[in-house]
Amino acid sequence: MVTAFAPATVANLNCGFDVLGMAIAAPGDEVSVWFNDANTVRIVEITGDEGRLSYLPEKNTATGGMLTLLQHVDCQRGVDVRIAKKMPFGSGLGSSAASAVAGVMALNRLLGSPLSKKQLVSFALDGEVIASGSRHADNVAPSMLGGIVLIRGYNPLDMIELPAPENLFCVAVYPKVEILTKEARNILPKEIPLQTAITQTGNLAGLVSALYTQDFSLLERSMTDLFAEPYRAPLIPHFHQLRQLALARQALAFGISGSGPGMFALTLTHHAAEAVSFTLQQFLQDQQIPCMTFVSTINRSGAVIVS
Amino acid sequence: MVTAFAPATVANLNCGFDVLGMAIAAPGDEVSVWFNDANTVRIVEITGDEGRLSYLPEKNTATGGMLTLLQHVDCQRGVDVRIAKKMPFGSGLGSSAASAVAGVMALNRLLGSPLSKKQLVSFALDGEVIASGSRHADNVAPSMLGGIVLIRGYNPLDMIELPAPENLFCVAVYPKVEILTKEARNILPKEIPLQTAITQTGNLAGLVSALYTQDFSLLERSMTDLFAEPYRAPLIPHFHQLRQLALARQALAFGISGSGPGMFALTLTHHAAEAVSFTLQQFLQDQQIPCMTFVSTINRSGAVIVS
Repeated sequence: MVTAFAPATVANLNCGFDVLGMAIAAPGDEVSVWFNDANTVRIVEITGDEGRLSYLPEKNTATGGMLTLLQHVDCQRGVDVRIAKKMPFGSGLGSSAASAVAGVMALNRLLGSPLSKKQLVSFALDGEVIASGSRHADNVAPSMLGGIVLIRGYNPLDMIELPAPENLFCVAVYPKVEILTKEARNILPKEIPLQTAITQTGNLAGLVSALYTQDFSLLERSMTDLFAEPYRAPLIPHFHQLRQLALARQALAFGISGSGPGMFALTLTHHAAEAVSFTLQQFLQDQQIPCMTFVSTINRSGAVIVS
Repeated sequence: MVTAFAPATVANLNCGFDVLGMAIAAPGDEVSVWFNDANTVRIVEITGDEGRLSYLPEKNTATGGMLTLLQHVDCQRGVDVRIAKKMPFGSGLGSSAASAVAGVMALNRLLGSPLSKKQLVSFALDGEVIASGSRHADNVAPSMLGGIVLIRGYNPLDMIELPAPENLFCVAVYPKVEILTKEARNILPKEIPLQTAITQTGNLAGLVSALYTQDFSLLERSMTDLFAEPYRAPLIPHFHQLRQLALARQALAFGISGSGPGMFALTLTHHAAEAVSFTLQQFLQDQQIPCMTFVSTINRSGAVIVS
């Protein structure tokens, strides 16, 4: 039996809408696999999903990619799968991507590691598409590879690993308000002003430069989102107040994680991250909104085999 | 008397529309200044402009910024100015920016260098606006600072100097076809598809990463322009054929320089740059289109005092 862990991820990082994602140290999902005698893929157990995930392998993100991976390597043997969801889903923290990545990661090891992590990404996307309806790699790639990953383009998939500063801390906040990725995507305009696009390109270029030079003032100036946030923020109760609170507690940046409702903040110290986390939690509790927060560093290893 | 030289520039670099510019070693403009007894700014000579530039200081890009600079430092003395245009204008190679930069650069030295180069940029923009109608810094900033400069944003002006690889060579080609910056700007759509904007952000992020890591394969994959080229290329005769020819001669990238009609190619060797230059020149001559080409490295020093 092989068990793999894949971390949660913060997609977009504000100015990198649809092209940037960052892995965080916690939380994440675990998937275990072992050969069976049934010649098929079977999901034998799912925990932590409150009964919401399908046991049909072709309808579960953790196994969707396994099916195409088994085909790809022309393996005739069957595999049993146990899925341990250890993070909220529908949170915007890349829960479906983490399961998809952990699934193909575990299976690849069971098969004797025929593929590299980069090669596994496209199989994980076959799983991710089941949950999100599209082959976006901005959660899958960082969950697999770790760190901060740029998805430069899709034809072919071009993943660039950017520097992930060691002294950056991330606070992830998940208020228990459901937003479906598809819905959050449909709310976006099909067209945007050219000037808006130019401003966003400047900011993203600024962020990439800041990561290479560790210029955190530039990072702070660059991390705004004009593409999605103006449309998605209204779906998240008290978004702007939460940002104000985070920035007042020395967060360098605050924004929506992926398609939300999860949010994230970046800080330069663990102490500041804890302070931001505490403040946001307290505020949301005062508003009677149940929430979870996670304080972590950037995850640099991505998916790993844990046993 | 102080004489300053400021280099030509290639704005946009394809994926960095309106936010990126690169200085090239040649050509460039020279501006000379000296105190007079008239208490006003006077243009006493302009060469190389075929009689097209104004002798009115407030209507000439070389002197527009001088006027605001003199005001800023509260200087009551008058200045005589000689402008030597040593590059084509209306070419898309940042001719007006080079004059504006050389002007304030020379005057600043004459005044005892009260301002830094970065501070001088905003005065050069006061000159540039006379020619282009807008305060775009994507030519002015690299002409002043040298290298490859990102204009992250304008409020306030945020200039980020990116790494300029030593082994990149630039071919600039100017076919003598007139395109006015304002016209080239008006042809652009006011709105673009969100997906187009996303693709461009990915490419620009890829280019910035490539400059830091000297990954020229990534640079090559990243340097496409979806914002302006589709609309401006039809204004330039044989644009797509010229690109084909340049790429066939090992150019990593080819595109419109600024708002055109000038074009540029990047290569990894001087030999390849000469080959691209020769091929494009020959093709344009066969088409009866007069042209100028310039082969150079990236200019790293920007504006300099030459005497």
